[in-house]
Amino acid sequence: MANFGGHAIPGTFFLLYGLWLAVKHTLRHRWRKGKTPGRPKAPTFLRKMEYVEGGFMMFAAFVGIMVEQFVVDGPHARLYSSGAWVKLMNWQHSTMYLFFGIAGFANVTSLIKSMPLGIDRMSISLALFVEGFLFYYHLHNRPLLDAHVHTLLLVPVFVGSANAMLQVFLRDNIILELSLACLFFLQGSWFYQIGCVLFPLSGPKWDLMLHNNVMFTTMCFCWHIAMALLIISIVALLVCSIVKRVSGESRNVELGMRNTTNSSQKALLDDTDED
Amino acid sequence: MANFGGHAIPGTFFLLYGLWLAVKHTLRHRWRKGKTPGRPKAPTFLRKMEYVEGGFMMFAAFVGIMVEQFVVDGPHARLYSSGAWVKLMNWQHSTMYLFFGIAGFANVTSLIKSMPLGIDRMSISLALFVEGFLFYYHLHNRPLLDAHVHTLLLVPVFVGSANAMLQVFLRDNIILELSLACLFFLQGSWFYQIGCVLFPLSGPKWDLMLHNNVMFTTMCFCWHIAMALLIISIVALLVCSIVKRVSGESRNVELGMRNTTNSSQKALLDDTDED
Amino acid sequence: MANFGGHAIPGTFFLLYGLWLAVKHTLRHRWRKGKTPGRPKAPTFLRKMEYVEGGFMMFAAFVGIMVEQFVVDGPHARLYSSGAWVKLMNWQHSTMYLFFGIAGFANVTSLIKSMPLGIDRMSISLALFVEGFLFYYHLHNRPLLDAHVHTLLLVPVFVGSANAMLQVFLRDNIILELSLACLFFLQGSWFYQIGCVLFPLSGPKWDLMLHNNVMFTTMCFCWHIAMALLIISIVALLVCSIVKRVSGESRNVELGMRNTTNSSQKALLDDTDED
Amino acid sequence: MANFGGHAIPGTFFLLYGLWLAVKHTLRHRWRKGKTPGRPKAPTFLRKMEYVEGGFMMFAAFVGIMVEQFVVDGPHARLYSSGAWVKLMNWQHSTMYLFFGIAGFANVTSLIKSMPLGIDRMSISLALFVEGFLFYYHLHNRPLLDAHVHTLLLVPVFVGSANAMLQVFLRDNIILELSLACLFFLQGSWFYQIGCVLFPLSGPKWDLMLHNNVMFTTMCFCWHIAMALLIISIVALLVCSIVKRVSGESRNVELGMRNTTNSSQKALLDDTDED
Repeated sequence: MANFGGHAIPGTFFLLYGLWLAVKHTLRHRWRKGKTPGRPKAPTFLRKMEYVEGGFMMFAAFVGIMVEQFVVDGPHARLYSSGAWVKLMNWQHSTMYLFFGIAGFANVTSLIKSMPLGIDRMSISLALFVEGFLFYYHLHNRPLLDAHVHTLLLVPVFVGSANAMLQVFLRDNIILELSLACLFFLQGSWFYQIGCVLFPLSGPKWDLMLHNNVMFTTMCFCWHIAMALLIISIVALLVCSIVKRVSGESRNVELGMRNTTNSSQKALLDDTDED
Repeated sequence: MANFGGHAIPGTFFLLYGLWLAVKHTLRHRWRKGKTPGRPKAPTFLRKMEYVEGGFMMFAAFVGIMVEQFVVDGPHARLYSSGAWVKLMNWQHSTMYLFFGIAGFANVTSLIKSMPLGIDRMSISLALFVEGFLFYYHLHNRPLLDAHVHTLLLVPVFVGSANAMLQVFLRDNIILELSLACLFFLQGSWFYQIGCVLFPLSGPKWDLMLHNNVMFTTMCFCWHIAMALLIISIVALLVCSIVKRVSGESRNVELGMRNTTNSSQKALLDDTDED
Repeated sequence: MANFGGHAIPGTFFLLYGLWLAVKHTLRHRWRKGKTPGRPKAPTFLRKMEYVEGGFMMFAAFVGIMVEQFVVDGPHARLYSSGAWVKLMNWQHSTMYLFFGIAGFANVTSLIKSMPLGIDRMSISLALFVEGFLFYYHLHNRPLLDAHVHTLLLVPVFVGSANAMLQVFLRDNIILELSLACLFFLQGSWFYQIGCVLFPLSGPKWDLMLHNNVMFTTMCFCWHIAMALLIISIVALLVCSIVKRVSGESRNVELGMRNTTNSSQKALLDDTDED
Repeated sequence: MANFGGHAIPGTFFLLYGLWLAVKHTLRHRWRKGKTPGRPKAPTFLRKMEYVEGGFMMFAAFVGIMVEQFVVDGPHARLYSSGAWVKLMNWQHSTMYLFFGIAGFANVTSLIKSMPLGIDRMSISLALFVEGFLFYYHLHNRPLLDAHVHTLLLVPVFVGSANAMLQVFLRDNIILELSLACLFFLQGSWFYQIGCVLFPLSGPKWDLMLHNNVMFTTMCFCWHIAMALLIISIVALLVCSIVKRVSGESRNVELGMRNTTNSSQKALLDDTDED
């Protein structure tokens, strides 16, 4: 959908998915590190959220496909008509959504015990690969700046695909997991930037053939990387500190008055050993 | 062989090989996971099938080479004649078959105990690499769409080669193994698609220079990926459920009337713990 | 900054950083290998140096950004003015420095215990990636030799980025660590070479379109590799021999007169088993 | 050196080095697998051969550099003369030899115990990288077929470099080791092929612009791969069977008449369990 909204909607989804991944993986990391008998509830909550995540991805993919097909100027499920392909752009977007739907389905089925570990990451990797693959062959015959901002989009897409593929083999590596969150966030914010560049809401139009604009967008992409790093780091730190407070409180409540002094001393130690 | 049949024959082989790999690796995976004293027959059967697989690959490669050489318009084993190379296309196809024959040979020899682990995967990886390598230099001076559909073929070929190479080091990873099955299946179905595009059995000819046709085939390739995923998943699930039923029955027969109740309770547990 | 100084300043920093990495990692390697109760002081010293390193990187990045912005012909923090981007080159350099600053910050925070291992290497990898990424899109429309010497610069930058990324997963591998030191040293010395080629201090100007000059610089780059190898090796050997002497003395002093004979015999054995 | 001899000499070295690597690594593999108290002599012999190998590489590199510099039409150690670079081709070849000399030096020093494991493979990887790197920028402005046969040479060079780099981390993997032997052998035989194509000893000259010649050489390269596989496999099998016979004999002699029956039964078992 060639307008600002058509870039802002997927952008919003990717931004939120990046934030959610950061929250989820930070929680899982905390839980992995502090597997104490005092907080056994986290994994149940996390398992339920996986179902919600997978279900939401399937739902969003379905809605996305429907919208792409049945918007006013969409193909209305016709692929070939009177000797020509109908609205291939919409069909391509539908195909991308399909693979994110498959990823959502794999996310849910990966919770079944007898399923092999890692099919969730494999399917996310595939969804990103297909997205990048279709975008890559999307770019022929476009003006310089248009092609360039879409080429830059391929960086978070393909690096994200490689990252998710690596997670199939290197599970539970918090650096890989937060990097993937960053890459999704970056992709989302870059979608907004593309919308701003190609369909500016206000101000003058960008000159799509000016080389200086290409140089600026390249640099601007790096600023987006820095911003994604910053925001994902803040989210991870916030989640950590909330978990620490909540789990501290619940432990205190649980353990009662018996060993409060003991526990708070331990909490002090937890803080001071961060050296 | 530049006709529909020339693409359908290798396509059929790759489709069947993909299906067979899915069956084989699912069986091996089930056997690895459930190494109980009750079912010691699986590995013997699987070992025998490896001989059959390797033998068949050698046989098919031999037949393929013979056909490429001695069809009516083939080179008849002449390479250079009256100052020009004779039918280089047929010679290139023969070379590809040769490496799949070598892979079959390596498959059989890898069953000898003192052979290093992984030469079977190494040789499959090499066979795919050579196939992709020859195709890559095959594409000069072809019309746009012809070159494009062959370029897309390189995706399953080279990704498959990398996958098989990875399996040399990461053995017995079911995700890698089923991915390779998918990639062979995808290659097979894409061979059919190439045949349909370049030599349509019915309907109008495709315009080989139309950019929209390039865009459609790119998207169509993604649909082939989804279909390959679907079919390989169904095959793997079918094999799993058949194995479960058969092994359950054989256990029941074996154990006799003594502990049927016990065993069926266990089977129930096996089903219910898949949550 | 398009003059010799503008290449010599970053070159000097990279040369010194490469030397420092060689010293640091050799010390850490010696300490890892000889974790004897006799020398517990090394890690404290190394920890302190990490703070100094990180702090210095942040400081240098800050100074670099300020200089790029507020030199006489700099953009003075204006990005867009009267319908055109202001001094994009300076802004790009500022962006590169920003990511090295982030790497310095990550270096310091990675010393906090609850931080995940490897964020220091990840951030160095990212800083090098951003540097290479910006340089890559820097090269359009430049004369042949200018583009070529900058392309060669991308080799240590991107290989260094991949190397640092690998160190996230393969920690404490001395070969990777010294290779990274070599790559930084190589980058530094190549910056000097670029300065010499584009802005020769004396002698005739280089013909930027002559193909022989391209061939010479390619070969010259290999000589820089050999020189970087040589110097980093010498530094590592010097550090090793100094550590051996110092630790030997301190052990002797510590252990006193009690078992001097014993200890020197051991030192002799340490020397002789290097066969 | 642009003649048949100039390609045959390095070709011969690479062929012999490939064969030697196959012999060495098969011996080491046999010794690793059968670490029995009965044959403690193999490693000493292998250690000595490493010195010989490293020394020979240094010597050959030195001779190569001298020859390239002081042949009749060589640069005679002058680099720049009367405003132009002198014989850059010879200087580039000298640079390549230099890095193989460094690899030989690293091979010898890697035998010192306190040296980090893997610097021998690292340096071989670097030598191949530099070779490929210089060849890659060697190819501008050459006729089609000339450029193509040199591009094909880059395949064994860069794959060999990646293989040797991988061996830094995955030590003692016989498949990687024999693959590297194959790649060196392939490089050697392809050097001969390049010599034959560009400077045919007899028969007509090749048309350097004919596309069919490009297609033939691509296919011919695959035949060289198959041949390299075959010869390295035969060498490895020969070494294995000789070792088996020799070690069997020596064991028999050693153990004397006491338990001949026992030992020969064991040998029989060794043969029969290869199923």
